[in-house]
Amino acid sequence: MKIIVDAMGGDNAPQAIVQGALDAHRELGVEILLVGRAAEVLQAVRDCGERELPTGVEIRNATEVVEISDDAAFAFKQKKDSSLTVGLTLLRDGQGDAFVSAGSTGALLSGATLVVKRVRGIRRAAMAPQVPTAGGSMVLCDCGANAECTPEYLLQFAFLGSFYAKRMMGIESPRVGLLNIGAEDEKGDTLRRESLAALRRADEAGRIHFVGNIEASTAMMGGVDVLVADGFSGNVMLKSLEGTGKFLSGQLKKMFLSGTKTKLAALLMKEQMRGFKKLLDPSEVGGTPFLGISKPVIKAHGSSDARAIFSAIRQAKTFAESGFIADVQENIAYMKVEGDAENV
Amino acid sequence: MKIIVDAMGGDNAPQAIVQGALDAHRELGVEILLVGRAAEVLQAVRDCGERELPTGVEIRNATEVVEISDDAAFAFKQKKDSSLTVGLTLLRDGQGDAFVSAGSTGALLSGATLVVKRVRGIRRAAMAPQVPTAGGSMVLCDCGANAECTPEYLLQFAFLGSFYAKRMMGIESPRVGLLNIGAEDEKGDTLRRESLAALRRADEAGRIHFVGNIEASTAMMGGVDVLVADGFSGNVMLKSLEGTGKFLSGQLKKMFLSGTKTKLAALLMKEQMRGFKKLLDPSEVGGTPFLGISKPVIKAHGSSDARAIFSAIRQAKTFAESGFIADVQENIAYMKVEGDAENV
Repeated sequence: MKIIVDAMGGDNAPQAIVQGALDAHRELGVEILLVGRAAEVLQAVRDCGERELPTGVEIRNATEVVEISDDAAFAFKQKKDSSLTVGLTLLRDGQGDAFVSAGSTGALLSGATLVVKRVRGIRRAAMAPQVPTAGGSMVLCDCGANAECTPEYLLQFAFLGSFYAKRMMGIESPRVGLLNIGAEDEKGDTLRRESLAALRRADEAGRIHFVGNIEASTAMMGGVDVLVADGFSGNVMLKSLEGTGKFLSGQLKKMFLSGTKTKLAALLMKEQMRGFKKLLDPSEVGGTPFLGISKPVIKAHGSSDARAIFSAIRQAKTFAESGFIADVQENIAYMKVEGDAENV
Repeated sequence: MKIIVDAMGGDNAPQAIVQGALDAHRELGVEILLVGRAAEVLQAVRDCGERELPTGVEIRNATEVVEISDDAAFAFKQKKDSSLTVGLTLLRDGQGDAFVSAGSTGALLSGATLVVKRVRGIRRAAMAPQVPTAGGSMVLCDCGANAECTPEYLLQFAFLGSFYAKRMMGIESPRVGLLNIGAEDEKGDTLRRESLAALRRADEAGRIHFVGNIEASTAMMGGVDVLVADGFSGNVMLKSLEGTGKFLSGQLKKMFLSGTKTKLAALLMKEQMRGFKKLLDPSEVGGTPFLGISKPVIKAHGSSDARAIFSAIRQAKTFAESGFIADVQENIAYMKVEGDAENV
């Protein structure tokens, strides 16, 4: 098992990336292929306390770096010798089993789609992070890759999320819900009503376990294992969770600092509060897989530290071993919507 | 100033509604017109400790009640003698200055639109609650009335929200943002890009203070005073906030109960935690106005207690006195988008 790692992507590259990768190599027994400016990467390896490259860790030189300021749709093409493009090309060519990057989300998505390519029959790749809920967590699919969707996209997201929950979270029959503004069948817009019908048919055929429309609030209380959304509203939900978490943490901090009694309470709760802050911190929920791409690609959070990179590599390893992509390939025939705009 | 109150709407009707209305009558000096089954309403008045109807409080009999199970779009028509329909008709006919109901949102919206009617030129009424943020609060407009929108709707929501923030929150030049999945101009879907252009033009003409696209997370940190959204994504955001608040409150409670030290902390923080729980509780943020209707209609939360009804009546009074509707009428000419689907 070899994981290709974009050593230059993310706010803390290359040092935190290299540190996380070396940790993963040591603790998980995976081979690592670090892609980036070789001299810088090697220096980072040395700064981690290694005199030489450990056996099972390689460096592949790539002279360019995709910046957040680059055009997301074209960066991977314009910078052919970037760590992102070289890494994806190595993945495509079978030089590794999965690719992990903390670089530009947009560039990684375009690159993954156009270099590694989607599974045949998959219309669009989806970003599907695990979001914490009162019931544990759920897969939110899509959360931003596709602002405009058709019913067929949403049907495919349901399959992708369902296979992911099964293979990665060990849920035998994941409950799939459609994010909507009410639970009743007639709620929402045309996209939701048409998608509901397609999802119902897939459920009746025994392909997925679809539980119907669900509101964001009910989903947060643990109502589903997979929440299907167009990338626009899925992203609004994800960012609302993040923003609310940050807002409430701030308010709580103010409350703890408001008097002598509360300051004492803060001391007593110090350890727990660290856990509380992490509950909705995006860097805590692991990397975001791009589902529908023909090989495992994991986007780590831009602000990833070594521990987050370690987690993303572990996730990439599990993903590559999981059988997820075979599930998608074998079931692609059931992910079609007759008359969908894309089929015309 | 006379406020018409739907005495039969909401989970705690008629008792909590009547109690809240009597409190508002006494403390705010407003006249109250209670609409509902007269005998039940009178009994509720008596159960509040009043032997007779106080001067300035009237009851108007209405024999039917719109239930949550009724069809929202038709209930106000099918139940012509419901408290909801009679109340709205009284408002239309000038028998009061505003209408407050804790009944079915959908029925109230359809009824307000078809009985009281929209301001001439307004395409759709919007639901616009005040949402708490790290900066205080913001108007979220629309949050569920219109699942499918055109750029002209969103432009109108921006004006409606801006006038509301100015008149009701006392903000001289409210910062208006467009809810999107990134801050850059090209982000989002076609609706967002077309709306952005229309909003920019309104800003350049000095009609609104538009600050551009904004993500849900940045908005929650206080980035805008008015957040413009289609009713679908606005509702997803609102429900995400509610769900996250509930989820995090639950987690916090667990943390407080996890050991002896934390239980002591809980005692010390008891008062503050009550405030924390209320931060994102929808019944705390006041009623939701239906903006764009030609007279003030306020939807109180279905689970409103007497205090929530009192607050909604106070809000209705302020709304009726605010000059908001005149603002809308006087500026309707600036709320058009050339070539918008609705104009063709």
